[in-house]
Amino acid sequence: MQKFTSIHDTPDPARLVAEALALKADPYAFEHLGRRKRLVMLFFNPSLRTRLSTEAAAQQLGMQVMSMNATEGWKLEFEDGVVMDGESAEHVREAAGVISQYADIIGVRSFPGLQDKDKDYADEVIHAFVEYATVPVISLESAIRHPLQSLADWMTISECQRKPRPKVVLSWAPHPRALPQAVPNSFVEWMQRADVELVVTHPEGYALDPDFMGDTPVYYDQDEALRGADFVYAKNWSPLQPYGRVINRDAHWMISPEKMALTNQGQFMHCLPVRRNVVVSQAVLDGPNSLVLQQARNRIFAAQAVMKQMLEVM
Amino acid sequence: MQKFTSIHDTPDPARLVAEALALKADPYAFEHLGRRKRLVMLFFNPSLRTRLSTEAAAQQLGMQVMSMNATEGWKLEFEDGVVMDGESAEHVREAAGVISQYADIIGVRSFPGLQDKDKDYADEVIHAFVEYATVPVISLESAIRHPLQSLADWMTISECQRKPRPKVVLSWAPHPRALPQAVPNSFVEWMQRADVELVVTHPEGYALDPDFMGDTPVYYDQDEALRGADFVYAKNWSPLQPYGRVINRDAHWMISPEKMALTNQGQFMHCLPVRRNVVVSQAVLDGPNSLVLQQARNRIFAAQAVMKQMLEVM
Amino acid sequence: MQKFTSIHDTPDPARLVAEALALKADPYAFEHLGRRKRLVMLFFNPSLRTRLSTEAAAQQLGMQVMSMNATEGWKLEFEDGVVMDGESAEHVREAAGVISQYADIIGVRSFPGLQDKDKDYADEVIHAFVEYATVPVISLESAIRHPLQSLADWMTISECQRKPRPKVVLSWAPHPRALPQAVPNSFVEWMQRADVELVVTHPEGYALDPDFMGDTPVYYDQDEALRGADFVYAKNWSPLQPYGRVINRDAHWMISPEKMALTNQGQFMHCLPVRRNVVVSQAVLDGPNSLVLQQARNRIFAAQAVMKQMLEVM
Repeated sequence: MQKFTSIHDTPDPARLVAEALALKADPYAFEHLGRRKRLVMLFFNPSLRTRLSTEAAAQQLGMQVMSMNATEGWKLEFEDGVVMDGESAEHVREAAGVISQYADIIGVRSFPGLQDKDKDYADEVIHAFVEYATVPVISLESAIRHPLQSLADWMTISECQRKPRPKVVLSWAPHPRALPQAVPNSFVEWMQRADVELVVTHPEGYALDPDFMGDTPVYYDQDEALRGADFVYAKNWSPLQPYGRVINRDAHWMISPEKMALTNQGQFMHCLPVRRNVVVSQAVLDGPNSLVLQQARNRIFAAQAVMKQMLEVM
Repeated sequence: MQKFTSIHDTPDPARLVAEALALKADPYAFEHLGRRKRLVMLFFNPSLRTRLSTEAAAQQLGMQVMSMNATEGWKLEFEDGVVMDGESAEHVREAAGVISQYADIIGVRSFPGLQDKDKDYADEVIHAFVEYATVPVISLESAIRHPLQSLADWMTISECQRKPRPKVVLSWAPHPRALPQAVPNSFVEWMQRADVELVVTHPEGYALDPDFMGDTPVYYDQDEALRGADFVYAKNWSPLQPYGRVINRDAHWMISPEKMALTNQGQFMHCLPVRRNVVVSQAVLDGPNSLVLQQARNRIFAAQAVMKQMLEVM
Repeated sequence: MQKFTSIHDTPDPARLVAEALALKADPYAFEHLGRRKRLVMLFFNPSLRTRLSTEAAAQQLGMQVMSMNATEGWKLEFEDGVVMDGESAEHVREAAGVISQYADIIGVRSFPGLQDKDKDYADEVIHAFVEYATVPVISLESAIRHPLQSLADWMTISECQRKPRPKVVLSWAPHPRALPQAVPNSFVEWMQRADVELVVTHPEGYALDPDFMGDTPVYYDQDEALRGADFVYAKNWSPLQPYGRVINRDAHWMISPEKMALTNQGQFMHCLPVRRNVVVSQAVLDGPNSLVLQQARNRIFAAQAVMKQMLEVM
């Protein structure tokens, strides 16, 4: 694999899931593959799970890891041909080119500005690093996708499904702040390729981008969507129009025990961090059918499978 | 050892001191014990000594280390059952649960707010991590205790004592800011279990919490306390009442050569960082009887002994 | 080597360059030299290249690395004998002394304040660490020098020169902000010892310190200086008088294809980060004669050669 920014970068997602599960069973089986190789992670936005899980993954492959907070001291320029007499001290061409001198794999995290939909959906930070780096680049969440999360989620569903072709419901949930669409976009993109029955439910006005949704069924009636669900994936996102705003905080969309009672003894999923008793009631989150910690743990093996495939072709 | 938050977590403090001294004599004797194990350190407050010494300790046990500044990007919720529609983006239940997926040992540093004595003395951050983590937790200083410092201090006294049952004087000293009681609380707690004659001296109004002090003798007359001292441990702390304020800056309490002349060629101790010529005069700090760098060095082996005991029962 | 703060700390700069080039050819040849040794890097100012390249260098020598941002939480006092009742929480004597307990080599980065020339040129941060540390100290750029950069630059010239005694031109270039003289000071200091023809060109008012310049030829006419150049090293710096100000932003000093056409098919150098189309036009920076990424890569081996020499005498 030369880059990992979306599902389109892997020819066989199901094989990648299988590889991640195999690594979970034997985490140090490829400890020599990353010997004398370095992962550099660059964070334009804060991270807990992603940073720790990806660093752990690299260690299990025997790699060295260096992490940088890109916001610590200098501002990058992404526009081409600009006269850099303003705030930006370095162009991404040099930053990506230089880091490539020190890294064998580069991981990049960036969030959307949530001010301008077209700008966010151009996903310029991750694309610029892919373009200007001379080593493989991994998205540690970009403005519009979070592929390592989706890979870990697929692993989790695969581990926990109690029947073939389970029903998986992605449900919007309330949140006090405007959040990105990265997690739902990726989840939909990956689940469309999995052997599941995927449905999405959200209030009117919260439609995801049609390029991601394709013909995935949408319900405005959450209860109807949840009926018979084997997995309930809760997540807030902000609307595309008006972009980056909160237009609905209806608490009836919170995933509660009553909502879970509509499902087929459904298992609860969320990528974390999660607002307790806003997105999901604590009875569900702390209950026996909550998979959130297993999802978090699988982030290690998702990252490890991706880096393993990159190291194998170096 | 399943947790290390106070002296009460170790059945035999003297044995832990002996183990730390043995590790100092042969730092890499257990380098294989931590192979493929990870320490995650989470800092809610800045740290120099603690971070470097604990990381060095982990390395000497062969562990991998990951450090996070918890203040970098998200605020944790500690209250149970709350509707999280405010500032906090994640509950400590999830944070501790998730980090436990990536860590074999978790270290946590937090400071008191110094606004509300009852809240600080509930020591909620370290207790929450102990409760919700599924791996052993080490206090890297909490709101009211600093047990790794006290263990290193005991080691230092043990190395430098020139007679059995030395006299150890903990003396309050002036400081321009209101500081926590964590270091003196722990020092008293540990020294009460050591074979020393412990006395505490401070101005009126600076009494430490009776739960920590027990029947340890207190002197308001610093000179009287210092007479015949073998070790002088200087430290500022703020009063319990009015809580978190500075009510005394009397420079006569500074540890000076004249004060040290009252002692039995006493050796000077401080946990650092220290305000020169405020807490202690530089003639004492830079003199041949100053143990401050030895104390700092012993922090490595204190942390190493604690983690060794944790790794041995994994 | 006991310290590395300027060219004066190495008895034979050319041998150090040769050693760095040898390490580039076989980066892991001395992987066992740094076993169980620790590098602690302390950053008073942000860093991308220096941090990553020096950490990579240490890893290639088998060392462990710990990095601290010195600005994260406490302010250091550098003045001797002061009563520390102000902002500073710790004196550099203790900070350097304590870090020496945990490190085998200490790296320190600091920038000038650009407010007071005499204070900056006293270079107190790096000198204080050298004085109070008990282990070797490496400058990762100080207020007035950047010796690791100059060593990497010499390597690059050595690799790319197409004739004996090439002509090397250090040219001032415009920049919207007042920048330090550290890079040009060091470059001049090192190139004076190399087998090159060194000339410096800058507008009137931008003279470098005579202690660094010695009898190096200076041209106010950039075109005249560039004629026949084999290497063009562009860099902005602020004037010594008025100190720390921007007094010239003349865009004619930008290195453009027209300027490069005056040279002997000259190769372009810059230490990065660089302002595109302000310091240098992008046609030059992205062209086949640009050496900037090679310079950045050589930073690894420059740091590795210095640390190798330090480890060899431990």
